[in-house]
Amino acid sequence: MLTGENFVGDTRSAKGSSVFQTFNPIQNDFLPSHFTEATDEEIDEACILAQEAFVILSQEPFRKRALFLRKIILELNAFKDQILECYNLESGLTLDRASIEFQRTINQIELFADYIDKGTFLEVSIDTGDLNRIPPKPDLRKKMVGIGPVLVFGASNFPLAYSTVGGDTISAFAAGCPVIVKSHPMHAGTGELVAQCVVKAAKAAEMPEGIFSHLNGKSYGVGKKLVLHHIIKAVGFTGSHAGGRALFDLASKRKEPIPVFAEMGSVNPIIIFPDAILLDRKKWVERIALSVTNDAGQFCTKPGILFVLKTDESRIFVEELKQEILRKSSVSMLHPDILNRYKKRLEEVSYSIGICQEIAPSNDALNEGPNAVSVCGVADFLNAEKLYEEVFGPHILVVECESQHDFLAGIDKLGGQLTCTLIGSEKEFLIQNELISVIQQKAGRLIFNGVPTGVEVNASSNHGGPYPASTDSRFTAVGVDAIKRFCRPVVFQNCPDKLLPMELRNKNVLNLNRRVNGIFVTEDIIDQR
Amino acid sequence: MLTGENFVGDTRSAKGSSVFQTFNPIQNDFLPSHFTEATDEEIDEACILAQEAFVILSQEPFRKRALFLRKIILELNAFKDQILECYNLESGLTLDRASIEFQRTINQIELFADYIDKGTFLEVSIDTGDLNRIPPKPDLRKKMVGIGPVLVFGASNFPLAYSTVGGDTISAFAAGCPVIVKSHPMHAGTGELVAQCVVKAAKAAEMPEGIFSHLNGKSYGVGKKLVLHHIIKAVGFTGSHAGGRALFDLASKRKEPIPVFAEMGSVNPIIIFPDAILLDRKKWVERIALSVTNDAGQFCTKPGILFVLKTDESRIFVEELKQEILRKSSVSMLHPDILNRYKKRLEEVSYSIGICQEIAPSNDALNEGPNAVSVCGVADFLNAEKLYEEVFGPHILVVECESQHDFLAGIDKLGGQLTCTLIGSEKEFLIQNELISVIQQKAGRLIFNGVPTGVEVNASSNHGGPYPASTDSRFTAVGVDAIKRFCRPVVFQNCPDKLLPMELRNKNVLNLNRRVNGIFVTEDIIDQR
Repeated sequence: MLTGENFVGDTRSAKGSSVFQTFNPIQNDFLPSHFTEATDEEIDEACILAQEAFVILSQEPFRKRALFLRKIILELNAFKDQILECYNLESGLTLDRASIEFQRTINQIELFADYIDKGTFLEVSIDTGDLNRIPPKPDLRKKMVGIGPVLVFGASNFPLAYSTVGGDTISAFAAGCPVIVKSHPMHAGTGELVAQCVVKAAKAAEMPEGIFSHLNGKSYGVGKKLVLHHIIKAVGFTGSHAGGRALFDLASKRKEPIPVFAEMGSVNPIIIFPDAILLDRKKWVERIALSVTNDAGQFCTKPGILFVLKTDESRIFVEELKQEILRKSSVSMLHPDILNRYKKRLEEVSYSIGICQEIAPSNDALNEGPNAVSVCGVADFLNAEKLYEEVFGPHILVVECESQHDFLAGIDKLGGQLTCTLIGSEKEFLIQNELISVIQQKAGRLIFNGVPTGVEVNASSNHGGPYPASTDSRFTAVGVDAIKRFCRPVVFQNCPDKLLPMELRNKNVLNLNRRVNGIFVTEDIIDQR
Repeated sequence: MLTGENFVGDTRSAKGSSVFQTFNPIQNDFLPSHFTEATDEEIDEACILAQEAFVILSQEPFRKRALFLRKIILELNAFKDQILECYNLESGLTLDRASIEFQRTINQIELFADYIDKGTFLEVSIDTGDLNRIPPKPDLRKKMVGIGPVLVFGASNFPLAYSTVGGDTISAFAAGCPVIVKSHPMHAGTGELVAQCVVKAAKAAEMPEGIFSHLNGKSYGVGKKLVLHHIIKAVGFTGSHAGGRALFDLASKRKEPIPVFAEMGSVNPIIIFPDAILLDRKKWVERIALSVTNDAGQFCTKPGILFVLKTDESRIFVEELKQEILRKSSVSMLHPDILNRYKKRLEEVSYSIGICQEIAPSNDALNEGPNAVSVCGVADFLNAEKLYEEVFGPHILVVECESQHDFLAGIDKLGGQLTCTLIGSEKEFLIQNELISVIQQKAGRLIFNGVPTGVEVNASSNHGGPYPASTDSRFTAVGVDAIKRFCRPVVFQNCPDKLLPMELRNKNVLNLNRRVNGIFVTEDIIDQR
């Protein structure tokens, strides 16, 4: 079923000679399919098609894009079994996890389809003119339009929800932008199957051909050429800090710089207060241990640091947490490369002064990521920069603090975060104004009495945060507002009604909630011009 | 009245030894006051104060910021005469123009004060939790918060509306961000007087001290140090492409890159169709000539290129337009440096193949910018890159086209624009689908039967556009949405009601229009938690 070819628009294409294979971490061997890297020519073709599609899309009714998204859902559901099987082989993640992520992906697409229909994302704002004012007041009508062709890089750890047809791609489509996906080399097969669904759906929804291309690339070259291509107008990326920053730097140096939204993971600190340990110790041991180890801790929101106040009870808590994490079964990581990076980071952490690290047994032949816990005192933590960066895998660093003031000092050392979590009683929180103010400045999401893994996707989601959690804290990668990354405003001044886009005309035939002279209304506009 | 000192918070400070004077272009001489450049120490002090103020601001009711803005209006009005006098001396712009810009500045501040009160900018979105769902659905509450201390660079051509207390500063205040203004060296005195009003207003409104600092700098060093300061979290700039791009590059290379919104002017092409010339020739001659020459053409939206179809009537139109522009009185430019740059650009344009350039007489001793018109055929235009860039001053390039298709070819050569203007009859526009689609992709504002100068400021404004008109087409420098440049989302997950910011609590005591479970309501939330 897999051809290993690229999709340049709706055409399968494999002009290049450089091929690669994906890898099954559990069999510890390459999978049979050979994927052909996209050539410069194919990259150029995909970009030109995307630009042509963008012009056509800009003139078509925006609700047609909702139809397209719903067709994608139909196709995905029709090929669900094949997709999950390939996902499982290429990632080593279980079929259960695959199935949950598949459903989340479907839910995301549905969310965006419904959101498109509402038209809220157009942010229509109209200030009507007044010829009698001196000077005459012009009629201004604003709406959001797509920024142009968008380049999406898939994430290794979410072959569905953050990849070929993940949040970046879907929010770009919703915004009216064609998408070129640089398929993730670790799950190029899953990518191809999903891409096939998107291509079919695009045809069924009568989308212009270049609305979607899917290009293979294992080398840095394919991504680099795409980021530098003058037709590309924005980039979405989920992955490592090194990868995200490299793309950001490339894009910033272009003759025409373009925005890169890179979500680059984070340490996601948890601060646990004494009451939680006194009252709910067992519960938090279990929840945190699961959040650290689930799917080998390969989540951007996996908690990487736990601040705890040193008390007699907390010693028991830390010991129990350590045992719970270490006794959990080790799980295969996505790829030997990811396992190796994890082991290297564990080693770096272990070399830090005052670190006491314990690593569970694991099977290298299955590429298992060993569950691990490091513990250190706050004084050592405050002097060890290496500890402030993400360890991608099933590891947590417990920082034992002498006073609650150390919580603040510890957090202060960390860069921008996707999440910060407080666990404790309301009484304990109520005296933590300063801490809450500081974590609000550090993080995109503040969690109370929960764990950071498990990202809820809706209108109130925020998956982003100050650098280095993301390259632009003003945007989110998840939830309907993710669309804002790919929209820009356009104003029509004194434009004849007939010539206006339908959304901006006097008659509100699309039944949008429009800001007219500063007030949100659905009524038609009585035009005095 | 002028001390030439910096404001580091509310303290006047002049620790440095490097001083400079401002210049009166009409007297062709330096003005008496000496301004002291900010030192590294003062820069650092201002940043630390700004960070402290930011933390305090984040915890205070947002409507207090509206009060602050209204106090600024009071202070500005109290010092209006002194400000206008200094403005006039430092810019050479007339008192009439000063007065108009003063009022526009006041109107902008009022607009933002009212907008803060509404609370729309908070974009409150709440999705309530559901403990019975499997897995339990968390309660998510999102609002926008200030991004952090903002650095603002004033514009030479708008000493009030785009400078010390212009749109960038006011929108940053509205967002809850302290502002450090790097005062424009050409109107440092006007800046100081306005800064004094802001400092007084901040005290009157009980704002934390560091909410505002005002630093002098003529050398590149002061701006550079500020952009690179780790406390600064965003930059607003209005000015030249070279200046904006340099700041953007600096900010992108930081260890923690920060967003720079630079509005860098543009060519603002006008396309005039035959019907307009046939039916309204005289009117368009007058309006375009005025738009080109008013205040020596020193506007970012001054029309720089006019595309016209070569017909017998258009020959008359072009000749009349030329005569009208050339016969208008020349006006002093803001500064000899700006005049010199203008003359250099005129010369560059004149060297282009096929250019026929006419320059009106002007008085160098008054630093007058000579009105000028260049004319060329479309074939020569399509081959001359130098013609695609802004000429800042009272000049327009008329491109004579052979067919309406040349309009498209000509526009296609241009980079991103703040505005594109079409002048013609509805009948002519109705067959220009392709052209309108293309200019929508090129520009932030499409104007029909008007001229691009004269920017209306309200909820439907857009002053920005694709690069090189701005460094980020997703934002505007003008109008209430300018606030979005300086806001980022923060989500509170499962946060106890008492601990939530007032805006997000169950009881909607602030009477905000909130998106609750996807629907905009003002009702309280019935919390099932």
